[in-house]
Amino acid sequence: MTLEILSIGNELLSGHTINSNAAVIGQALLPNGFSIDRVTLLPDEVTLLKKGIEDAMERSTFIITTGGLGPTGDDLTRDVIAEIFNATLVYDEAIASDLIRRFGSDLPTLEDQAMVPKGAKVIPNTLGTAPGFVLEGQATLFVLPGVPSQMEAMLPAVIAHLEKHHTKSHYVESLYLCLLSEQAVDPYLRTLEKENPGIDIGICPGYGTLSVYVHGDDPKKLPPIRDQIGKKFAAHTYSTSNKLIEVALHEWMVKNKKTFAAAESCTGGHLAARLTAHPGSSDYFLGSVVSYSNKLKETGLGVSPKTLKTHGAVSKEVVLEMVQGIQKLTGADYAVATSGIAGPDGGTSDKPVGTVWTAIATPEKTFAALIPIKGSARNRALIIDYTVTYLLASLYRHIVYQTELYS
Amino acid sequence: MTLEILSIGNELLSGHTINSNAAVIGQALLPNGFSIDRVTLLPDEVTLLKKGIEDAMERSTFIITTGGLGPTGDDLTRDVIAEIFNATLVYDEAIASDLIRRFGSDLPTLEDQAMVPKGAKVIPNTLGTAPGFVLEGQATLFVLPGVPSQMEAMLPAVIAHLEKHHTKSHYVESLYLCLLSEQAVDPYLRTLEKENPGIDIGICPGYGTLSVYVHGDDPKKLPPIRDQIGKKFAAHTYSTSNKLIEVALHEWMVKNKKTFAAAESCTGGHLAARLTAHPGSSDYFLGSVVSYSNKLKETGLGVSPKTLKTHGAVSKEVVLEMVQGIQKLTGADYAVATSGIAGPDGGTSDKPVGTVWTAIATPEKTFAALIPIKGSARNRALIIDYTVTYLLASLYRHIVYQTELYS
Repeated sequence: MTLEILSIGNELLSGHTINSNAAVIGQALLPNGFSIDRVTLLPDEVTLLKKGIEDAMERSTFIITTGGLGPTGDDLTRDVIAEIFNATLVYDEAIASDLIRRFGSDLPTLEDQAMVPKGAKVIPNTLGTAPGFVLEGQATLFVLPGVPSQMEAMLPAVIAHLEKHHTKSHYVESLYLCLLSEQAVDPYLRTLEKENPGIDIGICPGYGTLSVYVHGDDPKKLPPIRDQIGKKFAAHTYSTSNKLIEVALHEWMVKNKKTFAAAESCTGGHLAARLTAHPGSSDYFLGSVVSYSNKLKETGLGVSPKTLKTHGAVSKEVVLEMVQGIQKLTGADYAVATSGIAGPDGGTSDKPVGTVWTAIATPEKTFAALIPIKGSARNRALIIDYTVTYLLASLYRHIVYQTELYS
Repeated sequence: MTLEILSIGNELLSGHTINSNAAVIGQALLPNGFSIDRVTLLPDEVTLLKKGIEDAMERSTFIITTGGLGPTGDDLTRDVIAEIFNATLVYDEAIASDLIRRFGSDLPTLEDQAMVPKGAKVIPNTLGTAPGFVLEGQATLFVLPGVPSQMEAMLPAVIAHLEKHHTKSHYVESLYLCLLSEQAVDPYLRTLEKENPGIDIGICPGYGTLSVYVHGDDPKKLPPIRDQIGKKFAAHTYSTSNKLIEVALHEWMVKNKKTFAAAESCTGGHLAARLTAHPGSSDYFLGSVVSYSNKLKETGLGVSPKTLKTHGAVSKEVVLEMVQGIQKLTGADYAVATSGIAGPDGGTSDKPVGTVWTAIATPEKTFAALIPIKGSARNRALIIDYTVTYLLASLYRHIVYQTELYS
């Protein structure tokens, strides 16, 4: 079987919207043994859209389309597909009554959104108004809306259909490593590939993390190879299921009934945001004081005006007072603090952009250090992101593998 | 001319990485009059990659590839392209000396990363190790690395080349509206399209915002139509250049020399993070206390334990004390506060998931209200995102258009 995605929408080609849907679909299908062979972005334009869908139907067994099902004038997907399948649009009573139940009978787009191609099997949209559907012909088409949350909620129906009609053929196991360079890991992976014919090992660098993917068609062969890599780089391994270091830290904190808090300056709330994106974070995360101004460092965290004046906001002395301040305010077992120059402005010859002081407090000790921002990361978003990853990864390695902090 | 993007990497097809590069390229090229006709994701696999590039060269004038230029075993793009162009790889002294200057002569991947196909025009990579290059044949190929920051830094060279070889043919003007439904705007846009042949108007809904794009081939015709739409929905218009409401608020605050602060609970630092993502935010943003725990609401913001006990953390009374607390701590002219249930757990029959209390303080007055989370947004990430957008948009409309807060 071949499986492809058609992501539909002018806003995707213009770049006004990032095509996250294709990645979400890929991620959802992989653990179920299905892999995506191709992704194509198509515009909201009848001729190109029709040609794009027809071409895909010639080369693939299954096609997932996203986008173009809304009620407005530039939503063309449903009509174009009905034309390809030579199907009229029919009013679906079940969809209509569900829409009325959720949005009221005065929903202005009711007439439009309750129409589906004749012969289609409806995939209900529990969050929005545009229903999804499946059509079977030369190829099987799964037609889903483009709104990410709505599309994602319909994926279990797509997977159930695929599992009913096809056996799985492609498997993958993941391993996530932190604070290691790609060059330190890659040669070992190539050796493993040679030793294990039929196995492909991919490596994908992030800022501060590395994702390693072991691919193959025999699901039993993969976990031992993954674990062999994990053992080789033991003190850097943090997950086999989630790429995010914050999720590994979250799980450890909850399991060990510990609490955590932060005092942020240059990371500007991004550390807290990454932690609180995950359900249940309130079980261990007590909060963060984002003290962007010196005044809030004083009034909110108790940093002394004299320390600020003598050493400047970006200094070892200030991050130490910040981390002690947040521990006192919250009573957290573990805490971190950051103060740096994320740029692009604000750098000096003494403290250039990328100068970031951080502190980590454990129940036993408080540490502070400048973090090593590499040459390639002198960019505001990357400095912020790397600082957060570096702090969380350092703390994780210290508490799980007893590595020296800032080693 | 036709222009397409080939995004290369197994991690894109598996969904382990979201293909943000294609969107960044689309956004960078549009204001220069170039639009993307197609985007295709291809795997790191020699046969499929070669076929994908050859197919693209048959149908398009310009092709931008991203990814697969690194030093590791699964990076194949450069070799495959050299094969297609029948070009040997040659060691480029200028690249090598630049790499040595930036990374030292012991860079283990120096030999590999200094090689480019013979006849290629190098696009220097100022941030990383893999150089980009241009090759001209049946089509013109721009070959760029996949690391987003490195790729983005090379786009000016691509645009300069395109501008030298082709006249612009496609133009677009943008308009961004907040706190309006797609249905309230779309019919007017369709009327405008009918009145203006040759003009296409796209609409792209976000949570709390709408992006409107006016497309056409005559750059003089577009701004008057954009302004006509802006006038029609005046009190909802916040930008013609940036989709982010936080950027509009940022610009107003800096221009008017006002300051802003926040007290967050359910938004967990996401409000601060959205503001501080932008350079210069420290000119008006004083900080945020992310009081995820009740204790930090008391110790950090001065919320009274009695109010918390009597009304619960998610209440009008608590957000009012939070917003007053942060104003007092920071001295900010404007402040906002949030406390709600982002879910998926923590909801009760009394206060279900999606119950979000917010407060806004201006120099004149303090307001509080439950915000209207719609049926389609009962999802943790969307509740957080919508709450931030709603608060910033409400404040923006109040200060710029004198609308009633929470009207």
